[in-house]
Amino acid sequence: MAKQDINFLEKTLTLAGRAEGYTSPNPMVGAVIVKNNREISCGFHKKSGLPHAEVEAINNTKVNVSGATLYVNLEPCCHFGKTPPCVDKIISSKIKRVVVATKDPNPVVCGKSINKLKKAGIKVSVGLLKEKASRLNEVFFKNMKEKRPFVAVKLAQSLDGKIAAANGSSKWITGEKSRKFARRLRDKYDCILVGINTVVKDNPRLNGFKKNPYKAVIDPALRISRNSCLIKNNSQKLIIFASEKAKKKSFRNAKVFFIGEENGKLPVKKILSALYQNGITSVFVEGGSETAAKFFEEKLADKIYFFLSPKILGGKKALASIGGKGFPLKDCPQVNDMMIEKIGQDILITGYPDYGRQ
Amino acid sequence: MAKQDINFLEKTLTLAGRAEGYTSPNPMVGAVIVKNNREISCGFHKKSGLPHAEVEAINNTKVNVSGATLYVNLEPCCHFGKTPPCVDKIISSKIKRVVVATKDPNPVVCGKSINKLKKAGIKVSVGLLKEKASRLNEVFFKNMKEKRPFVAVKLAQSLDGKIAAANGSSKWITGEKSRKFARRLRDKYDCILVGINTVVKDNPRLNGFKKNPYKAVIDPALRISRNSCLIKNNSQKLIIFASEKAKKKSFRNAKVFFIGEENGKLPVKKILSALYQNGITSVFVEGGSETAAKFFEEKLADKIYFFLSPKILGGKKALASIGGKGFPLKDCPQVNDMMIEKIGQDILITGYPDYGRQ
Repeated sequence: MAKQDINFLEKTLTLAGRAEGYTSPNPMVGAVIVKNNREISCGFHKKSGLPHAEVEAINNTKVNVSGATLYVNLEPCCHFGKTPPCVDKIISSKIKRVVVATKDPNPVVCGKSINKLKKAGIKVSVGLLKEKASRLNEVFFKNMKEKRPFVAVKLAQSLDGKIAAANGSSKWITGEKSRKFARRLRDKYDCILVGINTVVKDNPRLNGFKKNPYKAVIDPALRISRNSCLIKNNSQKLIIFASEKAKKKSFRNAKVFFIGEENGKLPVKKILSALYQNGITSVFVEGGSETAAKFFEEKLADKIYFFLSPKILGGKKALASIGGKGFPLKDCPQVNDMMIEKIGQDILITGYPDYGRQ
Repeated sequence: MAKQDINFLEKTLTLAGRAEGYTSPNPMVGAVIVKNNREISCGFHKKSGLPHAEVEAINNTKVNVSGATLYVNLEPCCHFGKTPPCVDKIISSKIKRVVVATKDPNPVVCGKSINKLKKAGIKVSVGLLKEKASRLNEVFFKNMKEKRPFVAVKLAQSLDGKIAAANGSSKWITGEKSRKFARRLRDKYDCILVGINTVVKDNPRLNGFKKNPYKAVIDPALRISRNSCLIKNNSQKLIIFASEKAKKKSFRNAKVFFIGEENGKLPVKKILSALYQNGITSVFVEGGSETAAKFFEEKLADKIYFFLSPKILGGKKALASIGGKGFPLKDCPQVNDMMIEKIGQDILITGYPDYGRQ
């Protein structure tokens, strides 16, 4: 039984992941319905506003689901959102068992649906593949628990930790495959964020592969040029964070937030908060050196994607991938759950900074 | 036949490698003797002055080796060194076939032995597993071809390329397993080299795991303290390189070479040349930042061992693993044949810098 449960839950995760990057602000959810040990239907949540996975699965089959088992990676909802509560649909369709990987961290739900199902006489199992399921929805879990966007920091550095050579050259440190891979990563996130120095130096477009994500620029003195690609090519998807002290300017295609400085800098916490209030659930930070440093120093970088190119740049004056004040060794973030893979000639290291020892 | 040849040659490599770190200035060599498709003897070169692998193998069996095949990873010698030429022994023992992985790069040999064997009516095959065999003896090949020691540079850095935090703390960046691993690596090399800053800051011992290697310090102004571990604990195995301009001093336990500066620095080429003249065939450079940089800038770092700890140190003023002037991106060394492995929590990246594009 447990083995079958694992297999079908694995499938819900795979199904859920198919909509990665498109369900925001909702989590990714997949559902499988099994009757007499055979799968009779499945479904996944494709986009906010469209049916939830459980409803998709129930509606996707002509077989009577009465007496069947429903597998789902996240606790079904019990509240009216853009669609009616799934719990009611499950109860009315006479499903007799529900297997859930994780509780919904949303305080509006968090266990309530499970109780409601149980009260209706449905057998409920919770917790199998819990960690895998929470990791899949790491963005949603962060949103629900901390009421802020999930932050991933991406870097492309030489083996010795430089993002630009001593003479300033930085195009390209990593190979074509890595750059393509990084562009696809953008599709996972709601918003791509960079510092103004990166805009001035590289004039990037920051587009995704399939998606046109929001772009945010931390630009205290509002130095961004009207001729930059970001200003020219974005219609209402560019957000600029400037200091309250900056000379007020407006841009046809961009929204400018003027925020108060702290210790002479724009606090990234306030920036994230403003982004979250505007519906952005996840941020992909693409540098540069000082911008990345801020997110680590404020303990707000939740995930890293470090691309290491097999190059030695050297140079005391070359630009370090992460600048700022830096950490003392005993208090520095430790990266957990590291994964290492080769992308073309480069190495990609992903992981989760842990600030816990501080 | 080819498959059997590969298997027995693989075994010669394994045998040869058993003496890694102990054969200097000789190469590592293993030999296997096969008669009627069965191995009847084997041997390896254990130490300079002791018998060569071929002779070991011939002497190790009571079976008559006449008509047998000899497998050996390096072309047998044909010159008198500390022991008589192996070629004569092979011929007189009536071996009928010799399978050699690579020619001896030593100009005194380089193909001459193969010709001598052929002239004696012995069938000789050369070249199978050639690359693997040259890599095993990368130190010896470098010595023979460039008349200088092989140089490996070891670094222990945070994920973002720092070898010390902004506040100077650097103990320890990598974990215990990596540090133990690095100590074992020292056993592979004749000499461990550091810059004086590392001595002043860390006061290291630089001992191997089983071996007591030579230690070299680049110390232009001859600042090393008589109380440092290196001076106190070494009997005649410490070599210090100082500038001709430095105030002359002598140390009971150390040899001091005074060498001429170039552009205000001690040229590492001259340092390597002095070491080679003193019988040192391989150097393991353990930093710091500026010392490592010199070897890359002079295109003399042949191999890297980069230990990456899962830490984020950050800090504009933190110490970069490789300092110096640095390279422009288009001319920087590219690391080839990278190998990536986990050592405890850390990542070890080994590879071979290629300066060829310059």
